Amino acid sequence: MQSIQQTFRVDYSYKVFFTRSLFNPSNPEFRNYLASQVTQGLTKKLLFILDDGVAKAHPALTTAITAYLQQIEGFKIAGDVILVPGGEACKNDQELFYSLIDQIDGQGIDRHSFVVAIGGGAVLDLVGMVAAVSHRGVRHIRIPTTVLSQNDSGVGVKNGVNYRGKKNFLGTFAPPAAVFNDAEFLTTLEERDWRSGISEAVKVALIKDAAFFEWLEANAQALVKNDLPVMQELVYRCAALHMAHIGGSGDPFESGSSRPLDFGHWSAHKLEQLTDFTLRHGEAVSIGIAVDSVYSSLLGWIDAAAAERIVRLLINLQLPVYHSLLDTQNGVSSAVIKGLQEFREHLGGRLTICLLKAIGQGAEVHVIDEVLLNKAIAHLKVNYESI
Amino acid sequence: MQSIQQTFRVDYSYKVFFTRSLFNPSNPEFRNYLASQVTQGLTKKLLFILDDGVAKAHPALTTAITAYLQQIEGFKIAGDVILVPGGEACKNDQELFYSLIDQIDGQGIDRHSFVVAIGGGAVLDLVGMVAAVSHRGVRHIRIPTTVLSQNDSGVGVKNGVNYRGKKNFLGTFAPPAAVFNDAEFLTTLEERDWRSGISEAVKVALIKDAAFFEWLEANAQALVKNDLPVMQELVYRCAALHMAHIGGSGDPFESGSSRPLDFGHWSAHKLEQLTDFTLRHGEAVSIGIAVDSVYSSLLGWIDAAAAERIVRLLINLQLPVYHSLLDTQNGVSSAVIKGLQEFREHLGGRLTICLLKAIGQGAEVHVIDEVLLNKAIAHLKVNYESI
Ligand SMILES: NC(=O)c1ccc[n+]([C@@H]2O[C@H](COP(=O)([O-])OP(=O)(O)OC[C@H]3O[C@@H](n4cnc5c(N)ncnc54)[C@H](O)[C@@H]3O)[C@@H](O)[C@H]2O)c1
Ligand SMILES: NC(=O)c1ccc[n+]([C@@H]2O[C@H](COP(=O)([O-])OP(=O)(O)OC[C@H]3O[C@@H](n4cnc5c(N)ncnc54)[C@H](O)[C@@H]3O)[C@@H](O)[C@H]2O)c1
Ligand SMILES: [Zn+2]
Ligand SMILES: [Zn+2]
Repeated sequence: MQSIQQTFRVDYSYKVFFTRSLFNPSNPEFRNYLASQVTQGLTKKLLFILDDGVAKAHPALTTAITAYLQQIEGFKIAGDVILVPGGEACKNDQELFYSLIDQIDGQGIDRHSFVVAIGGGAVLDLVGMVAAVSHRGVRHIRIPTTVLSQNDSGVGVKNGVNYRGKKNFLGTFAPPAAVFNDAEFLTTLEERDWRSGISEAVKVALIKDAAFFEWLEANAQALVKNDLPVMQELVYRCAALHMAHIGGSGDPFESGSSRPLDFGHWSAHKLEQLTDFTLRHGEAVSIGIAVDSVYSSLLGWIDAAAAERIVRLLINLQLPVYHSLLDTQNGVSSAVIKGLQEFREHLGGRLTICLLKAIGQGAEVHVIDEVLLNKAIAHLKVNYESI
Repeated sequence: MQSIQQTFRVDYSYKVFFTRSLFNPSNPEFRNYLASQVTQGLTKKLLFILDDGVAKAHPALTTAITAYLQQIEGFKIAGDVILVPGGEACKNDQELFYSLIDQIDGQGIDRHSFVVAIGGGAVLDLVGMVAAVSHRGVRHIRIPTTVLSQNDSGVGVKNGVNYRGKKNFLGTFAPPAAVFNDAEFLTTLEERDWRSGISEAVKVALIKDAAFFEWLEANAQALVKNDLPVMQELVYRCAALHMAHIGGSGDPFESGSSRPLDFGHWSAHKLEQLTDFTLRHGEAVSIGIAVDSVYSSLLGWIDAAAAERIVRLLINLQLPVYHSLLDTQNGVSSAVIKGLQEFREHLGGRLTICLLKAIGQGAEVHVIDEVLLNKAIAHLKVNYESI
């Protein structure tokens, strides 16, 4: 029989800018970027969508944006800046999703226009999805405003919304047109949001970069004391490692099973869900890192001292390392662990999970030993539950 | 200020198979393909979604599918074959869209599984979109059952659904895992569906391949007389040209403005919409080809005889070449033409439209002369309205 083989490559490229006070008239970054995107004969539109938590903390922002964009050749701002509720709730709200699609339609946003999202990871995920499916993909610019979104979610290639309570059930891989990390936003974060994004830095250090791990140890106190320049360095280094992995992995859109950036995440995802998302993503990841690090040591992959050092760092960063939902009940494994086994069955028997071969080096397993895992959890419970 | 440049490439590849009676136990094609997709330790699921127009015309199909798949190692069929209404209506139905998402969820379809869509272009577009946004992209296999979907829409990289009456307002670029063109399906098409898909072959011949255009002229009578082997050759050649363009264009996901495969389509899209989709896509494209060919001759790009030859071929294929909605009313341009001018304004002044430099060679313009365009339409009206 005849057949035709189709093969092609698509090149993706975008820049992540690190700056401060992006819409200050004297800051040329955004203006310069737009200038690089001008097409002779076209007037391109910019549709701004803003996290209302950010708007509250930065009441002059909307005016600053409008003023900044007044005089930019080849571009015009479409309608008013649209406010959306920040935080996970916005990813559960189908009506909100379609109201943003209506804005794309009503404002005549097409594949020459840009949607600009300003907010935490949740708002960026929602708006990224809206842009990705409108007209088969409208360009979108991300302006992440939390530690987590500046060092991890906002610089990557994924978006998503929740469906019937299932986290990120709907989403796509859709690289942004550009990302602007503005450090100024980090100054107004709640304590918990400032801290919880740090766990992604610990994660990527553990699987990729021992020197960065040591840097985190050396700077834990400064980070806890809200030292902004130290946080800026953390964000930069973490974003760089995260992006280097995506760009260098050979599988940026995760068509295979291997996902080292999900180190510590299998239990984190389950914990977030079981706590109805009262646990922040970064907090859950911190616990997940602790579990998988101790498990790695019980496997003999890293020594006990290394695991202890990791857990210590998380604690020094004032991040949680244990949750009662992990615990066995009368000798029966917790829902978190059962979830993992269900997932394994669902796949037909074979998991792919990243663990630690060393501080700074991840490696994969396809089987998790339930007895050993419960031992790791018990170890965390006995030693750190009260912290 | 600091910045990080992200750059990566994604390789896409899929095969389009040309076969007959795909689920006949003696046909090894589908079995062989699945064998190439086995992963040690995983049992992969196949979720079948079937166009009910196809199911009606092929009542033994569901049983044949189930029987065919009974014994295939490493795979299992998930639930029952799901029937969906065929034709454009399925792309307007948001409830249907979410009921398919619910099936993905309920049947535990993940990124190791496959969604298999069997049907016309409309069902393939709907299911392609469902698969593309579930879990950030589930693999999908297409089994197109119309001429249009076998030679054009089903072998390409786009999907889409309509939103608030706007054609393909929501969609993505998402290449299939594989495509199986089964000629058997073509034998049960309504006359109109058999014929209308031929216009995409005329289109791609005109912009790419003069020899194929001559072949179409030579075989027009056989095509009109439902000669299946001739149609199979048409489908193969058209699909090959279509795919070669996508794979060789350097812009498979249409990030730029150039879209030669949309030759004849600017007016076709508008006509489909204005007739509430009572005009088939292929019929509208035939009219669009006629308009843009005559316009190309009035521009002096091709001679009048070439335009006449093109229109003649369409007529010999029993395809329409004129529609009253194109006509000026008391000297005022039709809604079709006004739509083009609105679109130009929307873009900020600059269109990109493919016309003909010769039979077999497309070329782009950025301006359309309204007076000349009305002349082209008048020419078609005077000479061919009554045909
Ligand atoms: N796409 C990805 O690859 C990826 C990766 C990891 C996490 N995520 C997603 O990211 C989300 C979590 O994002 P997050 O941690 O940034 O939190 P968030 O988006 O949930 O925001 C938390 C709160 O902070 C507020 N806020 C945001 N910026 C602020 C600022 N500068 N000042 C004051 N308040 C501010 C928000 O309004 C919200 O109330 C989750 O939905 C998670 O699924 C996505
Ligand atoms: N994704 C793309 O790149 C792309 C390109 C062009 C067109 N399209 C889309 O394709 C759609 C049109 O597709 P189409 O022309 O295949 O028509 P269709 O899918 O609308 O089907 C037409 C009718 O034929 C029936 N049918 C399908 N196969 C049959 C068979 N073998 N025997 C008997 N009946 C059968 C269907 O049930 C339906 O009633 C439009 O929605 C258009 O937007 C998509
Ligand atoms: Zn994370
Ligand atoms: Zn077409």
